[in-house]
Amino acid sequence: MSKGLPKRSEDYSAWYNEIVKRADLAENSAVRGCMVIKPYGFAIWEKMQGALDDMFKATGHQNAYFPLFVPKSFLELEEEHAEGFAKECAVVTHYRLKNNPDGKGLIVDPEAKLEEELIVRPTSEAVIWNSYKGWIQSWRDLPILINQWANVVRWEMRTRLFLRTAEFLWQEGHTAHATEQEAIEEAERMLGVYAEFAENWMAMPVIQGVKTPSERFAGAVETYCIEALMQDGKALQSGTSHFLGQNFAKSFDVKFVNKDNELEYPWATSWGVSTRLMGALVMAHSDDQGLVLPPKLAPIQVVIVPIYRAEEDLAQITAKVDPVINELRLLGISVKFDDDDKYKPGYKFAEYELKGVPVRLAIGMRDLENGTIEIARRDTLTKESRSIDGIAEYIRNLLDEIQQNIYDQALKFRDENTYIADSWDEFKELIDKGFVLAHWDGSAETEEKIKAETKATIRCIPLNSVEEAGEDVYSGKPSAKRVVFAKAY
Amino acid sequence: MSKGLPKRSEDYSAWYNEIVKRADLAENSAVRGCMVIKPYGFAIWEKMQGALDDMFKATGHQNAYFPLFVPKSFLELEEEHAEGFAKECAVVTHYRLKNNPDGKGLIVDPEAKLEEELIVRPTSEAVIWNSYKGWIQSWRDLPILINQWANVVRWEMRTRLFLRTAEFLWQEGHTAHATEQEAIEEAERMLGVYAEFAENWMAMPVIQGVKTPSERFAGAVETYCIEALMQDGKALQSGTSHFLGQNFAKSFDVKFVNKDNELEYPWATSWGVSTRLMGALVMAHSDDQGLVLPPKLAPIQVVIVPIYRAEEDLAQITAKVDPVINELRLLGISVKFDDDDKYKPGYKFAEYELKGVPVRLAIGMRDLENGTIEIARRDTLTKESRSIDGIAEYIRNLLDEIQQNIYDQALKFRDENTYIADSWDEFKELIDKGFVLAHWDGSAETEEKIKAETKATIRCIPLNSVEEAGEDVYSGKPSAKRVVFAKAY
Repeated sequence: MSKGLPKRSEDYSAWYNEIVKRADLAENSAVRGCMVIKPYGFAIWEKMQGALDDMFKATGHQNAYFPLFVPKSFLELEEEHAEGFAKECAVVTHYRLKNNPDGKGLIVDPEAKLEEELIVRPTSEAVIWNSYKGWIQSWRDLPILINQWANVVRWEMRTRLFLRTAEFLWQEGHTAHATEQEAIEEAERMLGVYAEFAENWMAMPVIQGVKTPSERFAGAVETYCIEALMQDGKALQSGTSHFLGQNFAKSFDVKFVNKDNELEYPWATSWGVSTRLMGALVMAHSDDQGLVLPPKLAPIQVVIVPIYRAEEDLAQITAKVDPVINELRLLGISVKFDDDDKYKPGYKFAEYELKGVPVRLAIGMRDLENGTIEIARRDTLTKESRSIDGIAEYIRNLLDEIQQNIYDQALKFRDENTYIADSWDEFKELIDKGFVLAHWDGSAETEEKIKAETKATIRCIPLNSVEEAGEDVYSGKPSAKRVVFAKAY
Repeated sequence: MSKGLPKRSEDYSAWYNEIVKRADLAENSAVRGCMVIKPYGFAIWEKMQGALDDMFKATGHQNAYFPLFVPKSFLELEEEHAEGFAKECAVVTHYRLKNNPDGKGLIVDPEAKLEEELIVRPTSEAVIWNSYKGWIQSWRDLPILINQWANVVRWEMRTRLFLRTAEFLWQEGHTAHATEQEAIEEAERMLGVYAEFAENWMAMPVIQGVKTPSERFAGAVETYCIEALMQDGKALQSGTSHFLGQNFAKSFDVKFVNKDNELEYPWATSWGVSTRLMGALVMAHSDDQGLVLPPKLAPIQVVIVPIYRAEEDLAQITAKVDPVINELRLLGISVKFDDDDKYKPGYKFAEYELKGVPVRLAIGMRDLENGTIEIARRDTLTKESRSIDGIAEYIRNLLDEIQQNIYDQALKFRDENTYIADSWDEFKELIDKGFVLAHWDGSAETEEKIKAETKATIRCIPLNSVEEAGEDVYSGKPSAKRVVFAKAY
């Protein structure tokens, strides 16, 4: 049954847009650059939030909430930070509308002009460090380990659902520490949390590394990141964790008395992942039939479709599957029994395939006679008929197997699309295909030239990279290790 | 031990502010009218969110997310709605800052002026109904039952933490139905959910009723509400549920084909509760010693404070309480064992009292010898010593008892402070003390005059009120039933 989806191999971009739309994940709104996250998409995001929130709390963090608005003067305080965000922000200048005296409708009331403009937060370092000033006096007040779930706005000219939108949802951790070492460990710990989430929940292998200076977060001393490979060979930065040094503490004049009774600036980190992960999830695993969801993030893990003509048949089927549904739910598995008579089974099959439901069970009258049920796997698109006895336990194991298989497939894809380039010709030939490991001389100049010629960027300097003497693939200058290049979202 | 809190009887307003601050619930930010919700306050809000979210899902609703910005032209479409919100909104007019050519810092880039101004959502009817236009074509698409957790902004000149802030957090349900009856039932169902939450979770009795036309939500046909009584005799509107008729469907031109193949406008509801409930929670139960939390919403339900001198003593105490902690956690009770040696037990006792932790356990060396533990209840401020055997089960029951007692106390307070007034003199004498049940002639004119003279408003026309012929307490005109008057937050 054709769903009329574009093929990945023919138009990857159109394929992505159609899946997001047809699987009811999100849509563009009439508000420029802002998306509507639809219930099915939001349910996946809630699963992500739940898993991440548990991991943040398990590592000692608490949630809090800080203002949506950043006074312009706060943004100015950390110079690089201001530079990085000033060019793409929504600015509130007035606090009232009034009736248009010349006609219909509302106009901005010129008398309600703010003395100081407010920026809709693009990120909250400034507003949070302004609060931390009141919270931190002594070493006893440290560490502060806070996370916030929030919406942020960065005015983007070219937007794409989930991947790049003017408003997006995210979490942002903001921590303060008594020592540099502790802050660095925190930034690395949270990178590890992100990597674990990406791999174990999203079934998406990632490379952990640090950004080059030119790709760092505005105001950071070091930016750690996880990078994933999408099916079109482009990289997607999936999370970042920043060691901010004492930059924000100094800009906001936050000091504490240490154990030796001396005044010091605390050390900071910030770290975040966003609804961009939804885009990564779609692009990492889905196929030409639609979305493929790892079971751990699927709002519906198992759907059961009854196949019947008469109402009495449905009653018999329902009686047979009710205990199975109960058993599955007791195992913590989310199940939907779809006996909606507005749609035919074939339509439903296509719909659940499109929406990436990991396991689909179908049961008809012949199955009742035989004591069987049909099981379809979304990841492999394979079907089998099995005895309905012990089916719940079987499905539990199957969901684990699917989770693992989706990860294995993504890892295999990444391995097959990670290349080594030792010459500029090789580099240019390979750079459209995936990750390219190449030597870099460490200069921003070379990095910039490579980007200008190929649009590829250094995604990261991997944390686990080994020393290996070589020559920069572009400049020929000496290099001590390989870095990861790719074109990126 | 004095915590230096103002007394309720002397300065209720200062008492409230101090509790919010000293219990670490929230603080004012440097951003005018916006608050910072601190980790302890946010943990209570998360408990509220969790309970409400479960109730919304159990009644068939799904979460989604819509844009932060409402284009000005959308707000204008529903006339009353526009009138209601235009005067207090944050207006985004530009999308970029630039370096100040005349000096330091950033200025708004005049070349980055938006063609159409965007309003930071004060509520989302407009932006959501604009989306629903694309979602609703046929009766098969109905009902739409959606909720959103979000931040909203209403520019308030005079703000108070939780009770009235420019930015606040809330949930807003927005539903669309094929029939008027179904929409009315939905609005009433959600009022019931709010009342159940207020009473069973917040331990706060509420009156369910409808607003008078002049107190209705801007754009609603009927506004249902729950009203609670605070300890200073003022009312606090704690949740509203609106039957919107076809107003938004018509304004946004949303139509569906019904089962008879005719085009119709769908019927709408919206309903919301906000972080204002945090203010209600504080003011409903707390005392001159600090916050009093109902166990169901307490982030820490039980705190255990060891009393010791030597490290070996602490080791012995820890060995004794560890199994108790495990048992409590298995019962789903959140426990904190506070062995922080930076503070003395007396300080900790005062601190947990201030923070409203329902049960405090203290255990010292003599307790170890005797096999006892000291139990202090926050609601009654009573203490008892008990055998440590079977203590977990005892505490489980105690928490239920405390939850019930806090509700009973609040109900008793409300009963004792609900009055009947049959003359204007009586009314004026009683209106500072609590709810006043009085006859009203049904006219906006009388309602307005009473408000002008006493600052009291009609909180609601109770749903369960009985017909009773009488005369309006102010105008003397005939009235068919009593309504609830009070001064209000």
